[in-house]
Amino acid sequence: MKTVWVNTVNNDYPIEIAPHLMQNTAAFGQVFNRFAQAVVITDENVRKLYGRQLVNQLRQSGLQTELLSVPPGEPSKSMNQVGKLFTRLIERQITRQAVIVALGGGVVGDLAGFVAATYLRGVNLIQVPTTLLAQVDSSVGGKVGINHRLGKNLIGSFYQPQHVLIDPYVLQTLEMRERRAGAAEVIKYGLIADSGLFAQLETSLEALLDLTDIDFVATVIEQCCHIKADIVGQDEREQSFRALLNFGHTVGHALENATQYRVFLHGEAVAYGMLAALHLSIDSLCSTSLERAIQLIRRLSLPPIPQSITVDQLLSAMQQDKKRRPSGQTWILLKTIGSAFMSENLPEIRVRQVLNDVLLARRVKK
Amino acid sequence: MKTVWVNTVNNDYPIEIAPHLMQNTAAFGQVFNRFAQAVVITDENVRKLYGRQLVNQLRQSGLQTELLSVPPGEPSKSMNQVGKLFTRLIERQITRQAVIVALGGGVVGDLAGFVAATYLRGVNLIQVPTTLLAQVDSSVGGKVGINHRLGKNLIGSFYQPQHVLIDPYVLQTLEMRERRAGAAEVIKYGLIADSGLFAQLETSLEALLDLTDIDFVATVIEQCCHIKADIVGQDEREQSFRALLNFGHTVGHALENATQYRVFLHGEAVAYGMLAALHLSIDSLCSTSLERAIQLIRRLSLPPIPQSITVDQLLSAMQQDKKRRPSGQTWILLKTIGSAFMSENLPEIRVRQVLNDVLLARRVKK
Repeated sequence: MKTVWVNTVNNDYPIEIAPHLMQNTAAFGQVFNRFAQAVVITDENVRKLYGRQLVNQLRQSGLQTELLSVPPGEPSKSMNQVGKLFTRLIERQITRQAVIVALGGGVVGDLAGFVAATYLRGVNLIQVPTTLLAQVDSSVGGKVGINHRLGKNLIGSFYQPQHVLIDPYVLQTLEMRERRAGAAEVIKYGLIADSGLFAQLETSLEALLDLTDIDFVATVIEQCCHIKADIVGQDEREQSFRALLNFGHTVGHALENATQYRVFLHGEAVAYGMLAALHLSIDSLCSTSLERAIQLIRRLSLPPIPQSITVDQLLSAMQQDKKRRPSGQTWILLKTIGSAFMSENLPEIRVRQVLNDVLLARRVKK
Repeated sequence: MKTVWVNTVNNDYPIEIAPHLMQNTAAFGQVFNRFAQAVVITDENVRKLYGRQLVNQLRQSGLQTELLSVPPGEPSKSMNQVGKLFTRLIERQITRQAVIVALGGGVVGDLAGFVAATYLRGVNLIQVPTTLLAQVDSSVGGKVGINHRLGKNLIGSFYQPQHVLIDPYVLQTLEMRERRAGAAEVIKYGLIADSGLFAQLETSLEALLDLTDIDFVATVIEQCCHIKADIVGQDEREQSFRALLNFGHTVGHALENATQYRVFLHGEAVAYGMLAALHLSIDSLCSTSLERAIQLIRRLSLPPIPQSITVDQLLSAMQQDKKRRPSGQTWILLKTIGSAFMSENLPEIRVRQVLNDVLLARRVKK
């Protein structure tokens, strides 16, 4: 078992990472024995794969356990779905002493986390992420929330779990495309904070994707969680430093938005966003590093960008970014592989050029 | 200007209390000069009285200011209303650097506070309470939230403001019935924590209600805020000690619930709840103190309890209390005037008897 601690203002909590953790009854008992009641929130796909197994573990640990599921996919991150979950919790007389267990990928973690943050002014939360993206990123650090019809993740809060339980073995049931999208965030950690991790990925990206060596996968997840925990511990509410984690996300979000969230997985859009951010880093980043980074990202085999997307569409979507300040757009750029920095207000002409040359040229070639 | 500091895990913030504070441009400038953008959320009644005045103050302090209002009354504390407010904030491109100003009573403070807590994962919040109840209680301590159709305040969070600005002079436009309801919470502070305050109220309750001496009113508000700040500073998330503030609220909530929130103001129901809790304290509370407490509460001229209410209805409403633990009901009782304690699981037969003799007997007499 690998343990990474996250230290925040309100609580310190462990991320436990171990292959076959989902079958480890003793470990579950230790984590859950202080609770009497649990509600597992998941989606219908994950329910079929791991729902029964997790419920049995919790019942064996002596918890009265309910299982609630929502339709899979981004549309479940809605006020409407939150309202339905509240109704079910109230009807089942779930009290403040209960624990909500978020079993699934980013959508389930964000949704169940927001429900936990706001039901009875906050109940206990344990994250059990089942996608690579959720294991290395969204389940750690306390960002929870839902979408508004006018924009993604506009409603939410910072709400830390009591525990994150990660079993890399469950990634076996994840489609290769999902694994690649998760690997984009792993590459991000290498680029912004850990040149050693980046070099490991240059050697072994395919071993991570194929899950050929599950202990290697666990080690990579641990390294990512360490980086995230360090940053979150220093700046939980993203008043400065935490923004570095958004490397690739400015353009990534714009690309997701311009394609109505229907074309790209989040990690894929972020991968494109990283390509753009790397080219925008050209004043600080040497050409060898730029080339190495581009080569590694290309190995993710990203789906093409639709013909219909224009530079104006992307710029307009960026205008609506919730991280935008009245003073303008903040960019995360790279100094070297393993070190990122914040930069305000790049000249629009330069941004346009990069979007056109790096992303949309790619669109034409396909 | 009287200042009371509230010290919580995430931030320390001042409550400023001064007659005519709403007209004090210099004071407003000092509080608001670090913000560029403000959104005042209020209800339609308060908007007419103080909306324009506050907006002018903020604009004079250099803030780009929007004014949003909701219908007055409890039904505005709904998911539906929260959704509408989110839409208006997004459409007006309100950023994370903005401040939301809650101008109004408990409903507006709870609603606007919840919007501030969850819009873009949390924006700045300043409370400007305009009822006695909000000035001494609901604007202080960070409880924000809305109702679910199955129960009151079931959705919410703990979210502290950056500042609370209290002008006792605005109570002049408040109906006498509202002032009395607020005074019930003032009496509560005396009973649970401050025998000196209680004795002052025995002498001068009517002076508080009539606002004959505005400096006396300011001093009473300050004392209440001190007590609340002390308790919240020790137990922000109500894991133990903060529950003492719920003196009178167990039966009070049940009474509000059993009358569909249409008969009593919150403070009135709490006053009845305090009468019940005082009688339930009879093992610890001497008969002289009991009598003094009853006499003071009677001076609030509570409206009668409807004929249709039964003991079973009240008990069933208590079953649904969100503070209830799986182990049973927690009661807040009195040792002496100025000192409260928590007690688990009073015998039901005794609770039934008190509800019948103290509350429902009163119902028959009317």
